Amino acid sequence: MGDEVVLLDFWPSVFGMRVRIALAEKGIEYEYKDDNLRNKSDLLLKMNPVHKKVPVLIHNGKPVCESLIIVQYIDEVWKDKSPLLPSDPHQRAHARFWADFVDQKVYAVGRKLWETKREEQEAANKDFLETFKTLETELGEKPYFGGETFGFVDISLITFYSRFYLYERFGKLSMEAEFPKIVAWAKRCLQKESVANTLPDQKKIYEFHMKWFGLE
Amino acid sequence: MGDEVVLLDFWPSVFGMRVRIALAEKGIEYEYKDDNLRNKSDLLLKMNPVHKKVPVLIHNGKPVCESLIIVQYIDEVWKDKSPLLPSDPHQRAHARFWADFVDQKVYAVGRKLWETKREEQEAANKDFLETFKTLETELGEKPYFGGETFGFVDISLITFYSRFYLYERFGKLSMEAEFPKIVAWAKRCLQKESVANTLPDQKKIYEFHMKWFGLE
Repeated sequence: MGDEVVLLDFWPSVFGMRVRIALAEKGIEYEYKDDNLRNKSDLLLKMNPVHKKVPVLIHNGKPVCESLIIVQYIDEVWKDKSPLLPSDPHQRAHARFWADFVDQKVYAVGRKLWETKREEQEAANKDFLETFKTLETELGEKPYFGGETFGFVDISLITFYSRFYLYERFGKLSMEAEFPKIVAWAKRCLQKESVANTLPDQKKIYEFHMKWFGLE
Repeated sequence: MGDEVVLLDFWPSVFGMRVRIALAEKGIEYEYKDDNLRNKSDLLLKMNPVHKKVPVLIHNGKPVCESLIIVQYIDEVWKDKSPLLPSDPHQRAHARFWADFVDQKVYAVGRKLWETKREEQEAANKDFLETFKTLETELGEKPYFGGETFGFVDISLITFYSRFYLYERFGKLSMEAEFPKIVAWAKRCLQKESVANTLPDQKKIYEFHMKWFGLE
């Protein structure tokens, strides 16, 4: 097809990682451009003028923005290999629901762990634990969120695994002790090359956040 | 097919209205159940235990939640009539981006107009105007957001037309003067039976909000 694929991204972005995993699952070659979110490139501002955020996938010159929308786009364009969304409409809706849940909740409850003042720490921890408990219940005994194969919801959530050490430090908790099924699921996902090659080391992500947000 | 379709909804819900319009566009018969959001039905709690919110579409006993996910589900299941999302993947991604923009921005900037303290009113008005200006720029000279036919982005936004009078009263502005293209687009949408039969009268919505939130 002679596809030209460029990804504007920032290496610690959990949203960007989703796109990198989807591209790897599909075996798509692309040019990776790491943007600095505190000094945004002209290309980023031109390609995503509304939100001015990574990731942006530029396919044959045309931009696609917002990570879950990009992953669906990738699945629709390169449909012959590794389907990410199920073909049944009800299962698709169910997958979209949980990926949306991750977007609405996980990012925010995680950030609150290190953004919150001490007196609000207990409430932040409670929200965090409830959110992951809901996810663990949804996962249940299935190997992946969609059932037997790695897919859309797994991609939406697994990138947050890179923050687990950060969560443990600021939430003063053990992810493995609190959410054994989620941690087992994450390790299962990490057996996939697409995931293992994408996710940065948890300590590197921790150190990045300490510096980026000036945390102590 | 012998489809059994039930919609759990609440009449002033801009999210519920989206589903009603999509069902009408597809000519689907369904049972409408109006829920009281301050005294939620057992059926709602059972069908949407995570968010406990309307709208919920129950199709042959199986629930689908979150309005934009429901509209996509409807479009995928009843695909023979009135396609709502474009078939081209890039156009689909573009439609999803703008529907998501409406979800991220329009509901919140609108609410802020009446929830904000007097000293923050100016900032609330500025956010509101910027959001609708962005939408008007995206609409441009097209009859509908997707081009020549009524579709996904139109459905996601047109339901907020029922709040325009509310916006005008609390924002002390004229939607027609500020956003002539958006108002012309809304009137175009209202020529469709699916929209005209769904949207409540703006004054009724205004009065509902005054009572529901105890506004003055």
